[in-house]
Amino acid sequence: MRRVTLTTDFGTADGYVGAMKGVIARLAPDALVVDISHDIPRHDIAAAAFALAQAAPQFPEGTIHVAVIDPGVGGERAGVVVDAGDHIFVGPDNGVFSLVAPTPVAAYAIRSPGFLRPDPSATFHGRDLFAVAAAHLAAGAAPSEVGPAVELLGCLTLPRSADGGQGTVIHIDAFGNLITDLGADDLPPTPVLVVAGRSIEALSTTFESVERGELVAYIGSGGTLEIAVREGNAAAELGAGRGDPVEVREA
Amino acid sequence: MRRVTLTTDFGTADGYVGAMKGVIARLAPDALVVDISHDIPRHDIAAAAFALAQAAPQFPEGTIHVAVIDPGVGGERAGVVVDAGDHIFVGPDNGVFSLVAPTPVAAYAIRSPGFLRPDPSATFHGRDLFAVAAAHLAAGAAPSEVGPAVELLGCLTLPRSADGGQGTVIHIDAFGNLITDLGADDLPPTPVLVVAGRSIEALSTTFESVERGELVAYIGSGGTLEIAVREGNAAAELGAGRGDPVEVREA
Amino acid sequence: MRRVTLTTDFGTADGYVGAMKGVIARLAPDALVVDISHDIPRHDIAAAAFALAQAAPQFPEGTIHVAVIDPGVGGERAGVVVDAGDHIFVGPDNGVFSLVAPTPVAAYAIRSPGFLRPDPSATFHGRDLFAVAAAHLAAGAAPSEVGPAVELLGCLTLPRSADGGQGTVIHIDAFGNLITDLGADDLPPTPVLVVAGRSIEALSTTFESVERGELVAYIGSGGTLEIAVREGNAAAELGAGRGDPVEVREA
Repeated sequence: MRRVTLTTDFGTADGYVGAMKGVIARLAPDALVVDISHDIPRHDIAAAAFALAQAAPQFPEGTIHVAVIDPGVGGERAGVVVDAGDHIFVGPDNGVFSLVAPTPVAAYAIRSPGFLRPDPSATFHGRDLFAVAAAHLAAGAAPSEVGPAVELLGCLTLPRSADGGQGTVIHIDAFGNLITDLGADDLPPTPVLVVAGRSIEALSTTFESVERGELVAYIGSGGTLEIAVREGNAAAELGAGRGDPVEVREA
Repeated sequence: MRRVTLTTDFGTADGYVGAMKGVIARLAPDALVVDISHDIPRHDIAAAAFALAQAAPQFPEGTIHVAVIDPGVGGERAGVVVDAGDHIFVGPDNGVFSLVAPTPVAAYAIRSPGFLRPDPSATFHGRDLFAVAAAHLAAGAAPSEVGPAVELLGCLTLPRSADGGQGTVIHIDAFGNLITDLGADDLPPTPVLVVAGRSIEALSTTFESVERGELVAYIGSGGTLEIAVREGNAAAELGAGRGDPVEVREA
Repeated sequence: MRRVTLTTDFGTADGYVGAMKGVIARLAPDALVVDISHDIPRHDIAAAAFALAQAAPQFPEGTIHVAVIDPGVGGERAGVVVDAGDHIFVGPDNGVFSLVAPTPVAAYAIRSPGFLRPDPSATFHGRDLFAVAAAHLAAGAAPSEVGPAVELLGCLTLPRSADGGQGTVIHIDAFGNLITDLGADDLPPTPVLVVAGRSIEALSTTFESVERGELVAYIGSGGTLEIAVREGNAAAELGAGRGDPVEVREA
């Protein structure tokens, strides 16, 4: 039994995700379909890349991860299967897999008859290509069967820091926490952080290190610096967003 | 192993959908429960009918589809099992199945003891009738066992075009795309479309046929004319909604 | 095959719930994971307690229910496994299980090596403790194996009525219905109810007992008095909220 995870920006209300689940159920009745998210912000490839990087590596080896955040559907970007060694990714070649699988073993364009619907629509590759290909992979096909090997072209433009003494907010999560690209090793022994004009004088280990409503900086569950307001919403309270710089200096 | 899909307007936060899943798990432990959506707009039977029509036909034959969008719960409308031949539908007789199963083989009112809870509540038939009946169907019961054959009375009042030269917006999806009731055959060879006072001079095949932010008309994945703004929200930008007319003329 | 249900306030967009599902899939590949909700209002322990009380008891005996609404994560509150006899609950000791399991058989703090990740993060116990412990329970471990027996300290402060002649709104559901703590036995034979300055002169059995847009009071599917607006939103229309008093008197 193979697992197929789904990550989309479709929401569920239109039945589009249901259609993908139906296609997989019909072609691979024993596959176990797992929802990661259908609430990725519309067309936000970077947000989907973040969610996949959080979730996908936790699954057992051999899991097939379908991601459909696809503003270029029907255009020139290829639909691909990415063999990352331990996991397989299926979706558009637009950079959505570049965080979770930065150096894949191989990638293949989905073109072989039988790995997509005959006469696929130009606007719903989630149903007509990606669900079909994923189902066949779940049923035992090898990634190389879906079509020719290709070089991935999709490129994720992440906000990046200008220099070493500065980090960047790369994601705002649903709690309003600011997730940065600064690892523990990037920080001096007693760091002072400045973000959105507010200064944080120490690194904490838990939210409870500060009072309710106060700013707290800590190394988060993904291994990088995060900034939160205890039981509050840091992004809203600071007016901070993805791409904002985080200055670091020694106290 | 039978699949049972769920479509509701409950949201998930109150645990009502969880209660339905629990009932099914208890009565039919081997049934595979699949979420289609719990985010149907409240009491919007037409929106649920659209979602079911998108999703349900993709599932394997014999799948049981439960839909609970039920403003008349506890009132005169019957709770029914609809045998559509290849699929089975369970829910209120209020028109929610009329798009996906316009000419069912048979329909039965859920009344036999054992196919509903003893002493069912008047406000939660999702848990007390529909989940119970669906579980028994998943465990092997025939639709005709749930109660007497009935004529379906529920009627979906879809916006309809006044005449042949005009279509109607029948759904706004989560991307803000306008889905119409005009098939490819309803369009002249070089159509000009007018919706919400805006004119579209050509039919495209993909979103990328136009620039970002521009209007695009195309035959969508459901086989009917759709109107979108590339990487934008057509409904919001045009102020268009369900029921709006779409004029069609030859260029 | 054991079922593991999930209830969180994480939303799904960040991949945090996906990470929990991955951890469970890796450690207990045969466990069946069921979403109850990921849309609990942030940090709202009482709302999560309500949802669990609606959903969890419907599941088969032996189901493992994970709930992560955990503003105190990483602080002094323990992570616990609660053996309620027929069901097992896993999550923070903050009162979230106090409605669904008011008198548990036993509770255990999750501390044994192997029942949590080595070097768990201080901010994501959903992934690093609760998913791990739940997976091991699903794979056959006994609750007592996770760590020492503890007394539960978490306390749910529910709004409570001042006296017997008065009830309280304990939950607002997604339809805007007001759910109270008044059972049928708490009401006189012909009750008059007053909530948010509005008086309701009779108890109805179904929504259709009143006209669309009118207030209706009834004994809900949870066995307590509820107040709704037929096909409307009572909470919004009355300006009512959790904790509001409901006066009861004999007509």
